[in-house]
Order: sequence, then structure tokens, then C-alpha cells
Amino acid sequence: MQTVRVALGERAYPIHIGSGLLGRVDLLLPHLAAKRVAIVSNTTVAPIYLDRVAGPLDAAGVRVTKVLVPDGESHKDWATLNLVFDGLLHTRCDRQTTVIALGGGVIGDLAGFAAATFMRGMPFIQMPTTLLAQVDSSVGGKTGINHPLGKNMIGAFHQPQLVLADVTTLDTLPPRELAAGLAEVIKHGLILDAAFFDWLEANMERLVARDPEALTHAIRRSVEIKAEIVARDERETGDRALLNFGHTFGHAIEAGLGFGTWLHGEAIGAGMVMAADLSRRLGHLRERDVDRVKSLVARAGLPIVAPALGPDRYLDLMSFDKKAQGGRVRFILLKRLGNAYVRAEAPADPLTETLAACTQPG
Amino acid sequence: MQTVRVALGERAYPIHIGSGLLGRVDLLLPHLAAKRVAIVSNTTVAPIYLDRVAGPLDAAGVRVTKVLVPDGESHKDWATLNLVFDGLLHTRCDRQTTVIALGGGVIGDLAGFAAATFMRGMPFIQMPTTLLAQVDSSVGGKTGINHPLGKNMIGAFHQPQLVLADVTTLDTLPPRELAAGLAEVIKHGLILDAAFFDWLEANMERLVARDPEALTHAIRRSVEIKAEIVARDERETGDRALLNFGHTFGHAIEAGLGFGTWLHGEAIGAGMVMAADLSRRLGHLRERDVDRVKSLVARAGLPIVAPALGPDRYLDLMSFDKKAQGGRVRFILLKRLGNAYVRAEAPADPLTETLAACTQPG
Repeated sequence: MQTVRVALGERAYPIHIGSGLLGRVDLLLPHLAAKRVAIVSNTTVAPIYLDRVAGPLDAAGVRVTKVLVPDGESHKDWATLNLVFDGLLHTRCDRQTTVIALGGGVIGDLAGFAAATFMRGMPFIQMPTTLLAQVDSSVGGKTGINHPLGKNMIGAFHQPQLVLADVTTLDTLPPRELAAGLAEVIKHGLILDAAFFDWLEANMERLVARDPEALTHAIRRSVEIKAEIVARDERETGDRALLNFGHTFGHAIEAGLGFGTWLHGEAIGAGMVMAADLSRRLGHLRERDVDRVKSLVARAGLPIVAPALGPDRYLDLMSFDKKAQGGRVRFILLKRLGNAYVRAEAPADPLTETLAACTQPG
Repeated sequence: MQTVRVALGERAYPIHIGSGLLGRVDLLLPHLAAKRVAIVSNTTVAPIYLDRVAGPLDAAGVRVTKVLVPDGESHKDWATLNLVFDGLLHTRCDRQTTVIALGGGVIGDLAGFAAATFMRGMPFIQMPTTLLAQVDSSVGGKTGINHPLGKNMIGAFHQPQLVLADVTTLDTLPPRELAAGLAEVIKHGLILDAAFFDWLEANMERLVARDPEALTHAIRRSVEIKAEIVARDERETGDRALLNFGHTFGHAIEAGLGFGTWLHGEAIGAGMVMAADLSRRLGHLRERDVDRVKSLVARAGLPIVAPALGPDRYLDLMSFDKKAQGGRVRFILLKRLGNAYVRAEAPADPLTETLAACTQPG
């Protein structure tokens, strides 16, 4: 087990990463306000993992309420949030009850937002069961739900008491979702840590084979990098933009294909290749740096060529991106591998060349 | 104009109290993150006061979005909250837009919760237009909505940038609602400030006649007292309970009659008389202290005799009160006028005597 301490806002919390952590009631007990928890999970994850968490808690004399909701991003909405509230109210949970979010990013966001707002705030603990949730949503305190007019439009910042990232849960993760999580891991290396990028080049096959030790290291380093950036900029006004590396292009891919066609991480995979290519055209990277990015993304099982939407459609989609500031499209680019910066706008010609070079022939 | 500075959490904010403040755009401008506001109000308040706020803002080059919702506690719910979100989204409000809550406590709670959760948090300004909202919800940062299973069940702590309490708006307040606000004012004197209680005895008729100077002083002192208590105990774990003086009895009255039959402040009026009576029976107050409480409550236009629900029903309702802790009914009692304390349980006999003495014959 490895531990990262995240220092944000009023308090710090630990992220424990390792094998078999779900049943480690000894790690949970010191963080409970009372011997009462409500585990929020979905109908996919619960049959596999819920008892591993609930059993030992029960044996330790903790009263456990279980709240199950349907699986999927389409259920990250008011209706499902109200299911959670109903579950908490009917079992008379109160402010001393700790909410445990057991599942992927949707469950973390939804249960976290319920914890942020039920009786104006309950403690909560995250047990992310996807690689994406382990490396991404476990740091930063973002919680929320979607609105028909926009993703993550309604939410709150609410820091957990504790995160348990059990790499054993990744054994049952579909390969596409593992790859999607690896996209964020690679991103963390590319924006801030060349040595970690080197390590990923040396260990990508171990990660794809779900070697627990390699996964534990990759998650730990990812979480440290994200925590460092978020700590500089908790409310998302400056440096946190670096975490959007690959996202301007990636978001255009997702929106252009229709959300859900490619996984977010898949779009970020191809988007990072595009951002690296554009960085080269602007004189920052060498050709072989771009090749290294491309190769690592491919080895993670991610697409490296973006779909053929046509350059005009890409430009259009990027300008509607929520990261467009004052009408200009903001790009996160690389000065070199392991060092990203924010650029307010890219010159038209290199951008058009990148769109031509990195997308499938139409 | 008088100003109270509230120091809570990460930052302090001013409460300005006085006549004609709604149109004082000079007080608003320094607190806006951008020249963009969304005024949330209801269909009762908006026709009278919205233009007073919007006109000068518009003239100062601030883009104003108006979001109107139906009036009343029954609309403090998900459906209305979503109306607010829809209004904010359709006019493309963002995190730099300041939400202005123009109305009573319901609008303050609802708009404040929308501001707390839209895009994970926007700045907001309160313009309370009822005495209750001016003395009560302007301090403490509580925002939220009701759930079918409980009042204020869903919410967040979200401090405003600024509160403008314009006493001119009280001119159009129905007399019962003015009295209901005075109940909280009296409460603040009783729990913490004997000199303020004396001042209220000398000035109650001026308050009932809506003398702006008297109202400004009463609101200022009320807000100072509440701010002092809340600052000691922002997250409501200890001293803040003192603010529930009169509420254990009052809540039983409201629940027993059906919520909305008596206004909350009316129930608190009779509830404070009961709490004073019980304090006397427990040896703290003299008979003439209780008479002073009774007389001041009556002069405010509030009931001093509770409805005839029968002592058993009262005991029952009080034990279901949310302030019941570990199965025991917690009472806020007076050691003397201007000095309250929390008592975990009251002996049965004096309590039964109070219920007999302070309620209408059945």
C-alpha cells in the first residue's frame, strides 16, 4: 500500500493505493464520525464489490445503509440524486453518517454531491473502482451532476475524508475503460513529469496486464501530480488548466462523434497526439518527441488518429468548447515532454496542418 | 445606513442596513466579479422592487438577467430550483455572474443554494425584503431547499459577498410578517443581550409603526448578536443551539397545527413565553421577568398563549423535534433575561405545569 496526502482547503486527507483495500476496515474506522455509513453504488459494481466493503464494516459494529442506483453517465442527474436522498432519508441517515462512494466517476460525483448537500453536508469517503476515477476524480473535490443543457453544471466542491483506491477492482474493468484511465495517467506525465513519462514508456505493458505493483505506482504518481496542480489552484482559476491537456481536441472529437461514441479517455488519447503535433509545429517539440507520445498512447490501447470530421467542423467544435475564453480557443501545449503551458490562441496555419495530419482521411 | 461586518469562514462580508439601499448601485459594484448579475425574485416582490435594483445596475452598464419564481414556502423545492438553473443556463450565466437574491427567506435560501451549486459555485448577494430574512437568514450562510420528507434537508453553506437590508421594503410587509420578524429580534435580546431587551421594551411601538431609524437599530443589533453566535460555531455543533430559543415549543405548535397555520415567528412568540415560564419553574427567572417577556411579545403583535393541543400531544411533538438529541428533548432556557443556556432535558413536572399554564384551555 502506498499513501498520498492531499492538502486542500481546510484539511488534508489521505489517498491509500494498493491491493485488497476495500475490506480494510482498519483504514476506514478512524475516519468515521459515527458508527454509521451509507454506501452508494450502482447495479454493476455492487454485485461484485459491495459485500467486500459492507461485510467487515458490519462485523465491526458499523450500521450500513446501502443505496443502489442505475449504472451509467445518463443517470448522473436529478432523478438519481433524489434516489440517493430518498435512501438516506428513509433510513434516517444524519450529518454524522459517512457516505461511501463505491464505483466509478459517476458514482463518485453523484454520491459526493449528495454528501455535499444532504443536511448541508455529511462526511464522505471515496472508493473508486475504475482507473479513471482512481487517478482523476479522487483529487480535486469536484462533485456534481449533469443538467440537460450541460455536463457537470450543478455541483459543489466537497473534499473526501479518505480515498481508498483498490487496484484489485481493476481486474474486472473492461479493457477500453482501463485504456481510458491510462490516457489520464500519460497526460499527468506529459504535462509535469518527464521522469514519470520515461517510467511509463518502460512499464506500459505491465500496466495493460494489470500488474498490481505497476498500477499502484502509476496511480500514486498520477495522484501526486494532480494534487500538486490542484493545490496551486483549488478553485480552477489558473494552473489547473494544464490538466486540460489534450482536452480541447478531445472534446471536439467527443462532441463531433456524439458523446459516448468514444470514451472520454479515448478522445483524450488522440487529442494528446494532436496537441503534441501542434506543439512541434509551433517549434517546441522534435519529431521524435511526438513519435514517443504517439507510441505510448498506442501501447496503452488508445486511438492515435482522430476521426474524420473535417477541419472546419473541428475548428467549429473547438470554438464552442467551454474552455474557449473570450471567444478565443485556449490550447494547452507542450514546451517539451513533461512541461506544459497554456496558450491563448494558436496561429491558423499550424493548427490546420495538425488537423490534416492527425485525423483519418475523410 | 449602518454596517455590520460578519467574519465567517475564509472571508468577511458587510451587511448594510438602512433606507433606500436597493437602488444604491455604488454599494453593489465593488462586490461584482464581472458586470453581470442574475436577480432571482418571486412574483410578489418583483413587481414592487425589481426595477429599483435592476434600473440603476442597467444604467451602470451591468448586464442583468431576471429569474422569477412563484412565491411561497411550498415552492422551495427541486422544481423551482430547476427553474432557476434553467434561467441561468438559458442566459449563459457563468461563474463570474453574481446571483442577487431579492425577496424573503425562501428566495434567499433557494437563490443562495442555486448560487452554491451552479457550476460548483457563483458569488451571491442578498437583498432580504422581509424583517425575518433581514435579521435571520442574512447571517450564517445557510442555503437550501425542502424535501418532501423534511424541511431544509438539501442545502449548502454558502456565504454571500454582501447583504443589503433595505428597511424601506418593510413598508409593504403584511403586519403578521412584521410581527413574525420581531419574534426573532426579541429572541436575540433574550438569549444574549439584556440591554437590547431593555431597548426593545422602550421602542416596540416605533418598530411596529415601522420607524426606519428604530428598525435599522433593531436589525443591526440582531444581526450582530446572531453573527457573534454563529462565528463561535459556524457548522452548528454547539453554541448555535442558543438561536433555537423558543423553537422546541414553537416547532411543536407549528407541527401540531399543521405547518403554515401559524407563521414560524408566531409560534416562536408563544414558544418563547413557554420557555421563559419553564425557566421560572426551574428557579432561574422571577415571575416579573416572565411578565416582561409576555408583555413584549404581545406588544410586537404576537400570540402569547399556545394553542390547545393537549399536554400529551405537546410532549409527543417535542420528542419528534429534530432538535431531540439521543432521544432526549433539548431545551434552550434562560438563566436570566439576556442569558440563555442549553439543557439536555427538563424534569417532567415543571414541564407539564408550563404546558398547562401557557396553552389555551382545551
